Amino acid sequence: MNTALNRILCARSLAIIGASSDPAKRGYQAIRQLLSDGFAGRIFPINPKSREILGLKCYPSVLDVGETIDAALICTPAKMSPGILDQCGQKGITGVIVLAAGFAEIGPEGAKLADECLAVAQRNNVRIIGPNTNGVFNLHNRMNLVGVQGVEPGGIGIVSQSGNMSLALITEAKRRGGLGFSTYVGVGNQLDVRFNEYLEYFGQDQETKAAVFYVEGFKNGRKFLDVCREVAKKKPVIIYKSGRTAAGQNAASSHTGALAGSFALTRDLLRQAGATVIEQSDKILSVAEGLSKLPVASGDRVAILSDGGGHGTITTDTLIEHGLTLAELSDETRMRLAGMLPASASLTNPVDVAGGTDENPACFADCAQILLEDPGVDILMIIGIFGGYAMRFSESLLEMEIETSRRVADLARRYGKPLVVQSVYGTLRPKPLEYLKELGIPLFIWPENAVRCVAELVRYSGARRRIARAQPLIPGPAKKAAQSIISGARSEGRDSLYEHEAKTLLATYGVTVPPHLVVREAGELVHVTAKLGDDPMAMKIVSQDILHKSEAGGVKLEISGGKALCSSFEAILENAHAFNPRARIHGVLVSPMARPGVEVIVGVVHDPIFGPVIMFGLGGIFVEVLKDVSFRALPICDEDAQEMIEEIQSKAILNGVRGAAPVDKSALVDLIMKVAMVSQLHPEIAEIDLNPIIARDDGYDVVDARMIFSNDGD
Amino acid sequence: MNTALNRILCARSLAIIGASSDPAKRGYQAIRQLLSDGFAGRIFPINPKSREILGLKCYPSVLDVGETIDAALICTPAKMSPGILDQCGQKGITGVIVLAAGFAEIGPEGAKLADECLAVAQRNNVRIIGPNTNGVFNLHNRMNLVGVQGVEPGGIGIVSQSGNMSLALITEAKRRGGLGFSTYVGVGNQLDVRFNEYLEYFGQDQETKAAVFYVEGFKNGRKFLDVCREVAKKKPVIIYKSGRTAAGQNAASSHTGALAGSFALTRDLLRQAGATVIEQSDKILSVAEGLSKLPVASGDRVAILSDGGGHGTITTDTLIEHGLTLAELSDETRMRLAGMLPASASLTNPVDVAGGTDENPACFADCAQILLEDPGVDILMIIGIFGGYAMRFSESLLEMEIETSRRVADLARRYGKPLVVQSVYGTLRPKPLEYLKELGIPLFIWPENAVRCVAELVRYSGARRRIARAQPLIPGPAKKAAQSIISGARSEGRDSLYEHEAKTLLATYGVTVPPHLVVREAGELVHVTAKLGDDPMAMKIVSQDILHKSEAGGVKLEISGGKALCSSFEAILENAHAFNPRARIHGVLVSPMARPGVEVIVGVVHDPIFGPVIMFGLGGIFVEVLKDVSFRALPICDEDAQEMIEEIQSKAILNGVRGAAPVDKSALVDLIMKVAMVSQLHPEIAEIDLNPIIARDDGYDVVDARMIFSNDGD
Repeated sequence: MNTALNRILCARSLAIIGASSDPAKRGYQAIRQLLSDGFAGRIFPINPKSREILGLKCYPSVLDVGETIDAALICTPAKMSPGILDQCGQKGITGVIVLAAGFAEIGPEGAKLADECLAVAQRNNVRIIGPNTNGVFNLHNRMNLVGVQGVEPGGIGIVSQSGNMSLALITEAKRRGGLGFSTYVGVGNQLDVRFNEYLEYFGQDQETKAAVFYVEGFKNGRKFLDVCREVAKKKPVIIYKSGRTAAGQNAASSHTGALAGSFALTRDLLRQAGATVIEQSDKILSVAEGLSKLPVASGDRVAILSDGGGHGTITTDTLIEHGLTLAELSDETRMRLAGMLPASASLTNPVDVAGGTDENPACFADCAQILLEDPGVDILMIIGIFGGYAMRFSESLLEMEIETSRRVADLARRYGKPLVVQSVYGTLRPKPLEYLKELGIPLFIWPENAVRCVAELVRYSGARRRIARAQPLIPGPAKKAAQSIISGARSEGRDSLYEHEAKTLLATYGVTVPPHLVVREAGELVHVTAKLGDDPMAMKIVSQDILHKSEAGGVKLEISGGKALCSSFEAILENAHAFNPRARIHGVLVSPMARPGVEVIVGVVHDPIFGPVIMFGLGGIFVEVLKDVSFRALPICDEDAQEMIEEIQSKAILNGVRGAAPVDKSALVDLIMKVAMVSQLHPEIAEIDLNPIIARDDGYDVVDARMIFSNDGD
Repeated sequence: MNTALNRILCARSLAIIGASSDPAKRGYQAIRQLLSDGFAGRIFPINPKSREILGLKCYPSVLDVGETIDAALICTPAKMSPGILDQCGQKGITGVIVLAAGFAEIGPEGAKLADECLAVAQRNNVRIIGPNTNGVFNLHNRMNLVGVQGVEPGGIGIVSQSGNMSLALITEAKRRGGLGFSTYVGVGNQLDVRFNEYLEYFGQDQETKAAVFYVEGFKNGRKFLDVCREVAKKKPVIIYKSGRTAAGQNAASSHTGALAGSFALTRDLLRQAGATVIEQSDKILSVAEGLSKLPVASGDRVAILSDGGGHGTITTDTLIEHGLTLAELSDETRMRLAGMLPASASLTNPVDVAGGTDENPACFADCAQILLEDPGVDILMIIGIFGGYAMRFSESLLEMEIETSRRVADLARRYGKPLVVQSVYGTLRPKPLEYLKELGIPLFIWPENAVRCVAELVRYSGARRRIARAQPLIPGPAKKAAQSIISGARSEGRDSLYEHEAKTLLATYGVTVPPHLVVREAGELVHVTAKLGDDPMAMKIVSQDILHKSEAGGVKLEISGGKALCSSFEAILENAHAFNPRARIHGVLVSPMARPGVEVIVGVVHDPIFGPVIMFGLGGIFVEVLKDVSFRALPICDEDAQEMIEEIQSKAILNGVRGAAPVDKSALVDLIMKVAMVSQLHPEIAEIDLNPIIARDDGYDVVDARMIFSNDGD
């Protein structure tokens, strides 16, 4: 329980510091709004120059108030903040909202003031929302400290790094109707309280059914992921992350100064933690509405019940494009539908009623029931002009339509399956559709938005199950042999392992690596055949000073026979010396050529925002040019590793192309898990890069491996 | 000039056949609507059972009307259509709208009735819109035969294969405001008049500023492309094509029965013809609005003027994701902006006014002028809460805001550069924004929609310039040598050319192909070195009965030396015989191995809907797995060929990866143009497949070539 935050947002007594009698000032507007909304707690205006504001007694300072104060809204100029925070601390106020701008965002001077505020606050045990925020509201507490008017209370919680974005969402909700908000927080500069704590609050808040975040940059990404994983078990967390492109990051940091990591990485990690990541701001609200109202989906098989060919087709296209499955209807279902619909109706999914509802909209409910009863259907979408029949055909249908809305909502509840409605008439807000919304059925105007919502629901439902099932990987103790490889390299002052050391280390954890021999003198090459067989060999320079071996002429491939081995050995040493005369040469690594297969890559990096992260991708140009990779925060479970492989855009290549057999994905899952384990057991390794790995139907070969130590010496 | 269609849609006299006194019937509603809208022409109700309907004299049949009738709305049941069409023809009515369903869409019986109608109509010189349509309107003619109420006249023309889709667009336009329609046609079953003719009409119609099409399937795609290319020179053509996925195509064809080609092909060809292709139906209207109001853009360099960091960042991200360019502002521009804005403002693009407009919204116009005057700016986007200052801050700003709207619209006109506004307040329709819309500036609520519109404008502007510039390729006469290769193969009864014949044919048109030798007996192999040099050779079976040479063991690569040539020759013949003992063997093709490079593919197919189409793509897995290809309808111009190469998703590979030099794109353009020429000059070749071609920095090698004749023997 985040007590401090809870005490601010659910305050029963509130000081308005910098209270004012000027209706243009926030210190007036806030009090007026609290009074007009019927805020049930006590309000204490604070201003040494006033006696009374809006009929309430005004105090010179919070210290003059005789009662307990839960939280304070600070409306004074930035410079006064440290002193006020000090007083708040003395008074036992544990949380404040600082509206003023003029801190880090204006430059070094403001940053200094911010530091001072934080120091005072921490000393006094006061938590700060803001500064530079447009405020907060908790409509279920009738506490609206933002000043936007006429917002409906409801289930959507919002935390936003942009005031305009929250305004956009609230305005849009008003237009749509049937959608309300619980708590809003403008995070401002996030001087103290950060995204993860707001998320924790939403997790606990009974009134919040779905949490929406507009984020430009996380300051404590790892902690956010940890909280998100817990909250997502109970309710959807929807995140719009801006600053996705380099140019966008520049624009964002000139706005807030927060770091913004690679978007692909951020998106993958948030989804791993159960969050729903939206990339178009105009979709945030419709997805949030859907997710806040719908039950979890048991699968991705969608049935479409349509009364208009065009919208049925658009829905079908979009479903497929989103990777969802068009449910296959059972014979029984089709037979039952046939008994209900005209002969020209299409009884395969998408079901087209072909005019069967024109004079009898109740038919929608009958068909919906049949489809919901089909065990092959996980989700039902009603598409077209549902709820608009009275408007379109005859007013006499109105009662029947309203009754149909009731029945449809009832069926959704009874069968516990997600049901959404898309209707062209949604914009006109006819009674049957308004009623439908009241009954908790998500309504969409455009089929694309309905499908997007269903797709995100399916993804969220899967993530929720995955997180609930996930057994945290508890690795055994670190292997002594691995530890001594690392300590050996570090004792030599190296900042990385040699390739063969990295491979040997991996092998101690059961990663299959090809056999190898490190040759330091040509004379040792006579042992190659005995130790490695007589297949063609790959030879590579081993030097801590040569990172890019090919560039240095330090790699020779497909070498067969003693003579060729010798001449290649000499050539490699010669090239390496020519490339860097001061390079310390450890020897030449000889290893049998890997059999052909598909190049993949597995790596671990320490992300500055999210900590240790594992990556999987297709190798070669796919990673270099197409950046076709997936990320997960460590630790991971088996399912994460499976998903990483399945998320690759060009994954068809893993399934076998041009007559090749599919690669052994379970071997790759095992490899990913073992690399994750190595990273966890040996935190001194900051970076792991296995590239390429040759994957085949019978396993894989780690053809090159690199491990780099972290700089901090741990 | 499409006279028949023009005479329907701009009718001055109209028969309503099946006129009725029953308000529930279309034959009543249509007349009531015409009367209430003040249709200026004559209305002739036709019904043998009535004397008068809504105060108008009713006639037993059109033949009883003494005056000229331009067009007829036929509201009678399907079965009566042939007789009525016959009467219309006798009366000299050249165009009718048939509302009734019950034709091809219900099965063979309906199809027969449709055929009969078409025969009668053609015999009588009557053109048919529909059947199975919800009607048409031309609001500038005050002729609304659809029955939707309260639609504003304006510049958007719509042709739709789905009644619900047009209803969705019209409803959405009403909600947005400031957006009206010219002509609407529900095409129904397209028994007679097809999309291309409607497009032709829109091209001529002065009132239509942008034409919108909702298409499930084209019936005469080639003709549509031809018309589109002409119309797009004058006004934007916006197309939403449904049935993009196989499942969607099934859904669509159960709706209309039209063929739906591969979406990627359709999209590329439509864009080649200057059309704007939209893939999300909820974006159709905002793009149409923007394109109908904005001038052509001279480039893709966009300046963003923002008063809110969040929306500025979202806009920047989305711009980059759409491939647009963030304009680089000149020093002068930045200096001038600095004189206008507070110190904390961001003066690089995106420009953030940092509160500089809060008390002085007129500052928007000042900044807009500076940005529009920068020669490095092609397009200006104003982003944030423009027009909402009076609502947000103080009612006293209202007059200044309205004046700012006027100035901004004025500046856009003066500088002739596209200018769009995105405002969070758009939904609330405050006066300054309503005024802005009246002045012709496109307004968006969400930044994504604004960017989408700008991106489509840039694309359209480029296509318009390309089409205007394009010189149709006038190929010289067909080469005799090429003709004799073809006639030789056909005289042997073959349906395709041998690989070496195809290569030789290409060479006659200047395509560089590697030298080769066809060897029929082992003894001839002695000539290989003399004729082809002593580089390693590729050897391939030549047989009209073996299509997949590798599968048949008919390919050997990297063959060096006489002995190896001989043994490979024998092995190939042996394998081919084992693979298919009855295969007719022409010989073995010997050719030097191509130097390494990037595999690409060029092909020509005859598409059933669009005719001859050329394709370019990256070879190997990129074409097979990722389907990374681009299409153009033949004939093409140089710029088409360049665009085909630049559209490839993985085109970075052509620009050189892993240290490779970029391939010679101009050589590839030349190759594509020559293949296009071969296809044009030799229409008897239905299919060309050059796969792979090895592209390098110094040109290319056509490594394999296949040409297949068309079946129709032309």
